[in-house]
Amino acid sequence: MNPLHGLFNPRSIAVVGASDRPDSIGARTLDNLLVHSRFDGEVWLVSTSKPELFGRRTWPSIEHLPATPELAVVVVPAAAAMGVLEQCAARGVRFAVVLTSGFGETGPEGQAMEARMREIAAASGMRIYGPNCPGITNVNGRLGLTFSPSFPHDLQPGPIGIATQGGGLGRNIMQAMARGIGVGMWSSSGNEADLQVADFIDYMADAEDIRVIVTLIEGIKDGARLVRALQKAARQGKPVVALKVGRSEEGARAAASHTASITGSAQVNSAVFAQLGVIEVDDIDELVDTAWLLARQLPGEVDEIAVYCSSGGAAALTADAIGQHHIGLTRFRPETTRVLSEKFPSYAAVGNPVDTTAAILAHKGLFDDTLLQVCRDPGVALVVLPIAIEYGAVTVEIAQAVLRVQAQSPVPILPIWMSDRTGEGFELYARHGIVPARSVGKAVKAIRRWLDHGRWRRRADRLDWQPWPTLGQAPQPGPALRITEREAKQWLSGHGIPVPGSALATTREEALAAAERLGYPLVAKVASADIAHKTEVGGVAIGLADAAAVGAAWDRIHANVRTRAPEAQVQGLLIERMAPAGGVEVLVGVSRDPVFGPVLTFGLGGIHVELFQDVARRLLPLTRSEAERLVREPRSFALLDGARGRPRADVSALVDLLLALSDFVAAQGDRIDEIDLNPVWVGPAGRGVLALDAVIVGRGEGAR
Amino acid sequence: MNPLHGLFNPRSIAVVGASDRPDSIGARTLDNLLVHSRFDGEVWLVSTSKPELFGRRTWPSIEHLPATPELAVVVVPAAAAMGVLEQCAARGVRFAVVLTSGFGETGPEGQAMEARMREIAAASGMRIYGPNCPGITNVNGRLGLTFSPSFPHDLQPGPIGIATQGGGLGRNIMQAMARGIGVGMWSSSGNEADLQVADFIDYMADAEDIRVIVTLIEGIKDGARLVRALQKAARQGKPVVALKVGRSEEGARAAASHTASITGSAQVNSAVFAQLGVIEVDDIDELVDTAWLLARQLPGEVDEIAVYCSSGGAAALTADAIGQHHIGLTRFRPETTRVLSEKFPSYAAVGNPVDTTAAILAHKGLFDDTLLQVCRDPGVALVVLPIAIEYGAVTVEIAQAVLRVQAQSPVPILPIWMSDRTGEGFELYARHGIVPARSVGKAVKAIRRWLDHGRWRRRADRLDWQPWPTLGQAPQPGPALRITEREAKQWLSGHGIPVPGSALATTREEALAAAERLGYPLVAKVASADIAHKTEVGGVAIGLADAAAVGAAWDRIHANVRTRAPEAQVQGLLIERMAPAGGVEVLVGVSRDPVFGPVLTFGLGGIHVELFQDVARRLLPLTRSEAERLVREPRSFALLDGARGRPRADVSALVDLLLALSDFVAAQGDRIDEIDLNPVWVGPAGRGVLALDAVIVGRGEGAR
Repeated sequence: MNPLHGLFNPRSIAVVGASDRPDSIGARTLDNLLVHSRFDGEVWLVSTSKPELFGRRTWPSIEHLPATPELAVVVVPAAAAMGVLEQCAARGVRFAVVLTSGFGETGPEGQAMEARMREIAAASGMRIYGPNCPGITNVNGRLGLTFSPSFPHDLQPGPIGIATQGGGLGRNIMQAMARGIGVGMWSSSGNEADLQVADFIDYMADAEDIRVIVTLIEGIKDGARLVRALQKAARQGKPVVALKVGRSEEGARAAASHTASITGSAQVNSAVFAQLGVIEVDDIDELVDTAWLLARQLPGEVDEIAVYCSSGGAAALTADAIGQHHIGLTRFRPETTRVLSEKFPSYAAVGNPVDTTAAILAHKGLFDDTLLQVCRDPGVALVVLPIAIEYGAVTVEIAQAVLRVQAQSPVPILPIWMSDRTGEGFELYARHGIVPARSVGKAVKAIRRWLDHGRWRRRADRLDWQPWPTLGQAPQPGPALRITEREAKQWLSGHGIPVPGSALATTREEALAAAERLGYPLVAKVASADIAHKTEVGGVAIGLADAAAVGAAWDRIHANVRTRAPEAQVQGLLIERMAPAGGVEVLVGVSRDPVFGPVLTFGLGGIHVELFQDVARRLLPLTRSEAERLVREPRSFALLDGARGRPRADVSALVDLLLALSDFVAAQGDRIDEIDLNPVWVGPAGRGVLALDAVIVGRGEGAR
Repeated sequence: MNPLHGLFNPRSIAVVGASDRPDSIGARTLDNLLVHSRFDGEVWLVSTSKPELFGRRTWPSIEHLPATPELAVVVVPAAAAMGVLEQCAARGVRFAVVLTSGFGETGPEGQAMEARMREIAAASGMRIYGPNCPGITNVNGRLGLTFSPSFPHDLQPGPIGIATQGGGLGRNIMQAMARGIGVGMWSSSGNEADLQVADFIDYMADAEDIRVIVTLIEGIKDGARLVRALQKAARQGKPVVALKVGRSEEGARAAASHTASITGSAQVNSAVFAQLGVIEVDDIDELVDTAWLLARQLPGEVDEIAVYCSSGGAAALTADAIGQHHIGLTRFRPETTRVLSEKFPSYAAVGNPVDTTAAILAHKGLFDDTLLQVCRDPGVALVVLPIAIEYGAVTVEIAQAVLRVQAQSPVPILPIWMSDRTGEGFELYARHGIVPARSVGKAVKAIRRWLDHGRWRRRADRLDWQPWPTLGQAPQPGPALRITEREAKQWLSGHGIPVPGSALATTREEALAAAERLGYPLVAKVASADIAHKTEVGGVAIGLADAAAVGAAWDRIHANVRTRAPEAQVQGLLIERMAPAGGVEVLVGVSRDPVFGPVLTFGLGGIHVELFQDVARRLLPLTRSEAERLVREPRSFALLDGARGRPRADVSALVDLLLALSDFVAAQGDRIDEIDLNPVWVGPAGRGVLALDAVIVGRGEGAR
């Protein structure tokens, strides 16, 4: 049984700070618990001021109760709350729900109180929910541990579990009940002194009455905990639909050109979500559309859909959105087309979209047979049914037909109620759980995400996941790593990352000898741990074709560096083989996300990254199949795949390099802050890859 | 007075095909006209079967009427309609509204009847509306010339005019009245045998009671007519908000790599709309959000907005959408910040977004002063007010405050009603014309378009427009133009397009002599009007550095062409100066859109066009300021603007080239089908541009 079972389903409850003062938190909490919940366990009221409340006796403190409550709801003012929590812990209470505000959100003193809450929780095993939150709503169990006056209005049970921090947006999702969405439970965990959104996702992944989890991420306190919870939901087959709030600041950072700064945390967050099968949406209303579709039916093996419509314009509009979101329209099997052609008059369109024309409204009998035929086509994953207008009785008759067909259909029918006018037809759909979407664009986005989630579920490596390794969430303290490019390359080379043949020359003579040994053409670069940007100080010479050129490069580079970086300690020159002509340059970077740890960024070199942000990211470590997908994700992958008459590039060597880099990061644990391999040369198929430049930023005493 | 004034406001009406058969088109049309309209002109009923209908006498035909009606509504079956129209024309009727279906939509016979309608209209001056349409709804004048049983339900007057072809989507927009949107008139012009959407836009541009025009474009019959109507709306200061239906097929074509095929018609349509200031939206609900905001207030001189919210989560969510759509949040002037800081408690956020926190709900007096302060900040163009939840009486009180503030505010306040639950608060906004948007994302998209339209209105050349030249909508017949690259370049060069110095060499000796004269390095290309793709037959040699190389190129190219294109007639070689190193290559193309005529496409060469469709398009002719904007539109413009340490390119020479090309196309009229200048070399600032390759496809007897 999940350790939070008792939080959502306590056997007994104490309300500490119970009150009958109108509109007080205490009174509203009691009203929800005693009047609007259907709780049949023991309830004790704790009040220091009144011996009796609403005809029930009270106790002056937790200590005085005749038995230990499993759960305590704490609504006393912040100043008194810490004492109450200590009493609860001492008494053996298992869960404390702290609704009171005035803690971390007010400043350092409040934050110190939250730290103390964590200590109490850790020492006693009592889990603390809140503070500064509207509480817990268990709709399916009809239990409200909340002061919200909205509790009695949002009680339509259902298969969706909601985990949020803030109350406002969570209540917004609850109010989707107004269009028929059923919600089983909602946790709104406020400041998260102890329990976090991740813990509630973990609970809902286990809860039998929850099929889909919806979450709003306002801030992630413990990335590893969240990852584990999301993995559990995936293992249990429960989709998680998420909206990340606060992407705008990060979005601004994404414009920067450099690998590390491109990997802003909103992008990392999206990459991690995608990797874990979390369905990320862009707007709060999209949460509901997407979650409800997933709750109605999980996507299966088929990826194409059908449109069935009685308005040609609405059909075209829907097809536009479908095309824009790169969803395939099923090419019907001959049997489907034959039946539609037989049943419909000649002016109807029996392709896909099916446009019955308004004439069907005069022959409503046609509706059941033809729609069911489309639903039963084995190439159809879902049938979308745009309804352009509210047309009174006709709309109701159509809704009745759709409900009849849905009862026999192997796939979901998704109506889109396009009109701002609702009516009995709308209500009919909603009452029967076929909740209409309210916008063509939003409906099609939801379908796209539903289909994408189906593809994700079909991937072979999904179920093989071990609990995610926790790499680098807590960087080790220590002095900054000071290593040259050559040292970085040697280190990486020792872990299977191919680098060009090279030699460190500490004298002009050594440079010339190394050149003869390595063979031409060559590159020469200043070797110094003090110079990060070698080109900027004139520290690089390329295309050296003979000994004379190498000698000249030695003189010129040293002269440049003496002038432009006089303080730098110079070891000499790194003499290196040039990459063969004809390859493609890519960039590979690793940076440490403060929430999730090391994240790998991959893109085709140069302009595509800068102008089009055409990169792909993954949380490390990588599996081989994830790496295979990663390299194919940027649009400019076409350049590796033989576009514009180029030879196909050695993608499998590139994948090997990414896996080697992932293993390297895993082996170094928390020592690595950033790695930039930019560029990596990718040769034609069979010719391998080479990291032409390498920068490692981290902590510790140098390369191992 | 607009020539269609009498169509929307007739002085007298005949209904031909009047009937009392329940649910017949004739009966429903009469019901709308006689019962639900407020028409005080003369109405005559024409019926061949009944002498009296609904207590009114009838006449057996138009010819028998005691006077000539200004307008006839024709609801007789298709077979009888042509005769009725001829009688109407003969009688001097000015407008015939044909509701009957069974014409062009049924096949060639029906199309022939529509051609006959055009003849009748042209010969008589009687304008024909329809056929196959639900008719005309003049809401502000309370006149329904329509059989739609929905007419009596959609009668909230207002400043929006709607012009559609199909009825379903048009009615969908009308039903936005359910959330308070007021619509003045709606034309749904069906098959458009004579009058087209363009004509109704033209009428609404003149109509005093219409401030914003909404149109759904399902197909454009006459591009030039539409352009003229849109220009008129622009001159009259009336925004046109448009949704193009049927973009999906075109979208598929956009993937193709070649200039001409990239210029699919949906992309051209969008480019032309943008050029004319038409506000194009992606979804039908966005039409309403955008149009209503424009109807409330036109955008002014300021481009930044403010967010005012009592839920931190909703504020962040809205800021995210604002950031995603690249809208600026105003940095408040000190006075605004001072007042907000004084009035609000310390835990409120007084920046932008303003987050009052839920605490404001306990101090509602703060609302008026602080919101008005934000509205009056001169840096604020609009205040967006996300409302996360329906909260009963509190929500109503806030709505009342917002309405009070709006009455004093110089800028619009746009509430976003985020909840699926509506209530009295929502109704209050709607009743007072402050119609809430229903989605954060959709609201912010509407704001973005509103601001963009403001920028468009501020452009200097907007009001200078002459009626748009009609270039090339009707290509001339004639033999295909057969010209070589050299002839194309000479032709263009004569019209001010810079091309590299070159000579046509018909012998090996001429080639060597020309090379010495032109100077090295050189390019040699086979000269033949029969070879379109010279590289593919080995017909190009580049980087020729001396006479020996030119001689070898002569031999090699001729050998290649003899083998790979033995049928081609070869004039010799085009010997041409190579472009200097260090420029940027762009592509410039002109193609003929079947609707709008010649359209220019501009992009940075190669990969950006193919992978990222990073091109910009304009309907020709170009003004200088439009050309200046055009070159800056692709994201890869950064490469011309000194990105990545490149020198700034000669953008002004590029603009000159585009204008010269526009003039060239204008001078050639309908002869030109396609021009490809790919690549055009753009040198560093001051160094000019060169069309390195040129292909002209057209009709006629060769270059002039």
